[in-house]
Amino acid sequence: MTDAATNMRLKLPAACLILQIILIILFGALVEYDDHTDAKKWHEHMKNTSTTDADNEFYYRYPSFQDVHVMIFIGFGFLMTFLQRYGFSSIGFNFLIAALALQWATLMQGFFHGMHHGKIHIGVESMINADFCTGAVLISFGAVLGKTSPVQLLVMAVFEVILFAVNEFILLTTLGAKDAGGSMTIHTFGAYFGLMVARVLYRPNLDKSKHRNCSVYHSDLFAMIGTIYLWMFWPSFNSAVAAHGDDQHRTAMNTYYSLASCTLATYGLSALTAHDGKLDMVHIQNAALAGGVAAGTAGEMMLTPYGSMIVGFLAGIISVLGYKYLTPLLEEKLKIQDTCGVHNLHGMPGVLGAIVGAVTAALATKEIYGDGMADVFPDVASGDVEAAFQGVRQAISLAVTLGMALLGGLLVGFILKLPIYGAPPDTICYEDSIYWEVPGEESAHEELTTVRTEESEKLNS
Amino acid sequence: MTDAATNMRLKLPAACLILQIILIILFGALVEYDDHTDAKKWHEHMKNTSTTDADNEFYYRYPSFQDVHVMIFIGFGFLMTFLQRYGFSSIGFNFLIAALALQWATLMQGFFHGMHHGKIHIGVESMINADFCTGAVLISFGAVLGKTSPVQLLVMAVFEVILFAVNEFILLTTLGAKDAGGSMTIHTFGAYFGLMVARVLYRPNLDKSKHRNCSVYHSDLFAMIGTIYLWMFWPSFNSAVAAHGDDQHRTAMNTYYSLASCTLATYGLSALTAHDGKLDMVHIQNAALAGGVAAGTAGEMMLTPYGSMIVGFLAGIISVLGYKYLTPLLEEKLKIQDTCGVHNLHGMPGVLGAIVGAVTAALATKEIYGDGMADVFPDVASGDVEAAFQGVRQAISLAVTLGMALLGGLLVGFILKLPIYGAPPDTICYEDSIYWEVPGEESAHEELTTVRTEESEKLNS
Amino acid sequence: MTDAATNMRLKLPAACLILQIILIILFGALVEYDDHTDAKKWHEHMKNTSTTDADNEFYYRYPSFQDVHVMIFIGFGFLMTFLQRYGFSSIGFNFLIAALALQWATLMQGFFHGMHHGKIHIGVESMINADFCTGAVLISFGAVLGKTSPVQLLVMAVFEVILFAVNEFILLTTLGAKDAGGSMTIHTFGAYFGLMVARVLYRPNLDKSKHRNCSVYHSDLFAMIGTIYLWMFWPSFNSAVAAHGDDQHRTAMNTYYSLASCTLATYGLSALTAHDGKLDMVHIQNAALAGGVAAGTAGEMMLTPYGSMIVGFLAGIISVLGYKYLTPLLEEKLKIQDTCGVHNLHGMPGVLGAIVGAVTAALATKEIYGDGMADVFPDVASGDVEAAFQGVRQAISLAVTLGMALLGGLLVGFILKLPIYGAPPDTICYEDSIYWEVPGEESAHEELTTVRTEESEKLNS
Repeated sequence: MTDAATNMRLKLPAACLILQIILIILFGALVEYDDHTDAKKWHEHMKNTSTTDADNEFYYRYPSFQDVHVMIFIGFGFLMTFLQRYGFSSIGFNFLIAALALQWATLMQGFFHGMHHGKIHIGVESMINADFCTGAVLISFGAVLGKTSPVQLLVMAVFEVILFAVNEFILLTTLGAKDAGGSMTIHTFGAYFGLMVARVLYRPNLDKSKHRNCSVYHSDLFAMIGTIYLWMFWPSFNSAVAAHGDDQHRTAMNTYYSLASCTLATYGLSALTAHDGKLDMVHIQNAALAGGVAAGTAGEMMLTPYGSMIVGFLAGIISVLGYKYLTPLLEEKLKIQDTCGVHNLHGMPGVLGAIVGAVTAALATKEIYGDGMADVFPDVASGDVEAAFQGVRQAISLAVTLGMALLGGLLVGFILKLPIYGAPPDTICYEDSIYWEVPGEESAHEELTTVRTEESEKLNS
Repeated sequence: MTDAATNMRLKLPAACLILQIILIILFGALVEYDDHTDAKKWHEHMKNTSTTDADNEFYYRYPSFQDVHVMIFIGFGFLMTFLQRYGFSSIGFNFLIAALALQWATLMQGFFHGMHHGKIHIGVESMINADFCTGAVLISFGAVLGKTSPVQLLVMAVFEVILFAVNEFILLTTLGAKDAGGSMTIHTFGAYFGLMVARVLYRPNLDKSKHRNCSVYHSDLFAMIGTIYLWMFWPSFNSAVAAHGDDQHRTAMNTYYSLASCTLATYGLSALTAHDGKLDMVHIQNAALAGGVAAGTAGEMMLTPYGSMIVGFLAGIISVLGYKYLTPLLEEKLKIQDTCGVHNLHGMPGVLGAIVGAVTAALATKEIYGDGMADVFPDVASGDVEAAFQGVRQAISLAVTLGMALLGGLLVGFILKLPIYGAPPDTICYEDSIYWEVPGEESAHEELTTVRTEESEKLNS
Repeated sequence: MTDAATNMRLKLPAACLILQIILIILFGALVEYDDHTDAKKWHEHMKNTSTTDADNEFYYRYPSFQDVHVMIFIGFGFLMTFLQRYGFSSIGFNFLIAALALQWATLMQGFFHGMHHGKIHIGVESMINADFCTGAVLISFGAVLGKTSPVQLLVMAVFEVILFAVNEFILLTTLGAKDAGGSMTIHTFGAYFGLMVARVLYRPNLDKSKHRNCSVYHSDLFAMIGTIYLWMFWPSFNSAVAAHGDDQHRTAMNTYYSLASCTLATYGLSALTAHDGKLDMVHIQNAALAGGVAAGTAGEMMLTPYGSMIVGFLAGIISVLGYKYLTPLLEEKLKIQDTCGVHNLHGMPGVLGAIVGAVTAALATKEIYGDGMADVFPDVASGDVEAAFQGVRQAISLAVTLGMALLGGLLVGFILKLPIYGAPPDTICYEDSIYWEVPGEESAHEELTTVRTEESEKLNS
């Protein structure tokens, strides 16, 4: 796996520029503004439907989109800066692969979500969905953080986006499952895909870089920026593509309570399990978010506030226990080196969320949902299926997702194992300076002393 | 007050898990979705009122809610990271007690705001109000920052939320006062409550930790993240629960100009009073925000843009002067060790805001407000009271708030003085490592040098 | 240029307080709430037009305003923290001059945008425009970063805002140009104005501070906060004052794709041109944003998604090449010391955006725009001018902007050259401690060791 040729002079420009040019050509051939973004079509639409500019989808979705956007670029990016010398790569590669993935996802999702006379129609909802797909890629990135080259990550993104779109199509269109916040499509898929890639890319000699696989004081503070933004905006994430009205509203609120409850569970479990009763930043940074993941499927359903709190509570507990007991086992027994512990933050809570979604769906009744049933479970409302069967669909969707993620990760892992991408050697993992011009650190301190002396002399004179 | 048993192994998990389980039970027994979040009720509501999904309260309030949420978790959290070795605790305990307080506040406020057939109805407005109440708790946290254990803070939050809800009920419901941005209910209450708690918890030997009660270069930059977010989103804070339309719009704009004006006053006064004409980060981080606090009551009224600017100007001046001259006096004479200077940022500007609100209310006329009077002063519009009397109500509300805060703080201070919460000893205040696993700092530097050598050898070979 | 009297004790308070008092007086004399913020007028407006609170401009614009606000205060502020010892000044002076500029811009723009019976009417749209004007001032600040006193910056802001408003008036009102995202009015103007100021303030002996004109590890991470926020919210920036409906929606989406494409171009070019194929943080922090600048004029037009991507791609390329090859030349040949490289981020991409806007406007047809033409090109829709002529207007606007910026910058540069503002000497540029109380750095480390020893002794005993 080690590869001396980590120089990116030609590989990275070739990958970036060729991929971008291909994207431009495909967008030119296939992509059009939708009815809400096209000048002509929107004005015709308003005339035909007697609506006004206020009804443009932009006003229903754009604030949620921006919150999701912050989660993708600030949330995921800074969450991964916890490593002491990998901040540039964490934010920088997150930025790069997200910029690729959101364009590529627009095409892939557009293709599967249904073409209009051979064209993909895009607007704010497709932008949110593209960001969602990007989120799955970034979750997988978390599993291999510090051990991959940027070219390898771009290649991973290209393949993962395709598989994500296929899985999402199977779940939402073929199986008729509901997954507004993506417990299955985003979190479970992204986590198990990434874990399988990490498995294939297993490095037996990674302990040579072990001393860098930890945080320093300031890197943990930077990571908390990511954590808090993810935590705050998760209600927007889960509700961003839910149906208008009560659905968006309820999803946001359920997620809010799930996260609050999860946070208390996380602090409790962290102090209980960590050394000397002290809190562990790894738990706080990650496990406190598990409540958002676990409310991803059932958040739009009538989960009730206390139901949401129970889900968040359980998610926080299993997530901390995962970090404490499961992650070391995964590495030792299954040879999965999961840098960020995505199994604990996205994997297990995603599966929990899928199960909660299946159960909640199976229990849906007309008494509870009233006319709102048509928004949440259209097939149940129309009488096509029973609520219990909707639950079965949800359960099957989880199984499909796990299968797609594991098989896809296996396949893509082997593609990424080819010794052509300039991956870092085992001795220089978790280290920015291999791919970045890194400035010094000490100079500032020496400098400071000199300046102060100079300056006070100056001012005193 | 010192307490050797700072180990949190059992205390913190017990507090977190028991409190969360109680919350879940109470939510299960008492809390329901409101008409805008419940699937069935919203669809019935739409039918009965001929409205559409676009009229759901979510679209009027959710963007403001998210801005408030950012202020609570990022704003308050990072503002307090200015201490050199207390960043984990500042953000982490802020996160913990906010997650508790927002759930508990939902119940307490719901109880006082009126039950519906024995149930509390919740939606985006109750989420904003819960965040507001949380804000008051975090203000009090600022007064005792660095000198308390997380369990002590959780206990403080439990009691303060109750007293906050009682005070808010007296002001808004019993007295009919207006306080959309919470100059009284949030800032004055939170500050004087916290100051009284700090008084009761006075530590005569705190100078043993004095060397840690100051900032370093990077901690001041982190704190500026908090400051700037609070500053930017304060217009959303003050307008979040104002009436729809012109009220929300006007409140946001008044706050924007008050803050801009306050910022110039702060810079001017800081350079005027600080050592050698240099700017003091403490002033910039805090006093520049006083304009938001002071516009909290009158922001929704017809304060006029220049009126808002005058209020902000005065708030900035008294806040800087408070930091410079009053804070040392408070500690020396009144034995109040106010870590963040909440008296200067929230206390005095809150009182100023309450007075401005009383005067502005007393001057309200039908000529100025037109039909908008009913939104801002419903009792004046309906003829129940004179505008002058509305001013009196506002003034009484300030007095009630001060009384509730001081008495409540006294009481809760004594509860928190019990030597059972694992508070830090006088010698180890303002220090993360007592409650957190703290990573090293130096390792990174040594590491860096080694890596670079290794790496350049590698690349050169 | 050097000036021993860098003490700000009197200069800065005088400037801040006098300017703020003048602003308050002018606001008192000239500024009124507009129809959407005034209690009386809004309720009359609703009655007269049969609209509801939901139609208040607040709900169309406020979320965009807050995103723009974040870009101005966090985006620009943190982007400039890349310097190792200039973080306080970067964020702090950004904060100060922005707080001044937005108030002053309200007056200047209000004056030129048309008075109502001698009064300036303000609301959320004027707030966005004031923030936009502030953006131009902050771009100019980037060119002179590290070499100016806060008083000098306030004086620059006062004059630049006037010239900005004049130029904006000529472009949008006199010439009938379109520039929703400000490629010309904001970016081209701010950049060339700042470059000319930097030219006049040329310091031949600036190499005495050269060792401080670079970043350290953590300062680059702080700067990335600025970069990512600018990048994420640029779609809101460009669309904030676009017409309601499809226009806002389309502008946001075009910008989103332009930025994504620009990011891949930036990474590619950075690795291609930087030392050893490593990525250069300067490029990532800045050039990745050029796609937002370049989509500022044409973003609201029917640029198409792939057209947007081509524009972003080109912008990223010229921006990186500018940093690599042009910036050193500018300093050497033209004596322009452009600290942040605003020529590469705002100057050239702004000119590119203006040209793209002219071409796109010239190609507008009724077939493409339908009834939406009236929103984008009202004069073309009404038949007053041909589309080709609209293109000519856009091109003339670019020329006017360049002329105004260069002449204005020259003039203001000479005003700023007066040795009365307390500018830093050549030996102490790029240094916070000249204007700020700066805390130590080392203490924390020594401290830490002591604390840990103390503490472990304590706990072990």
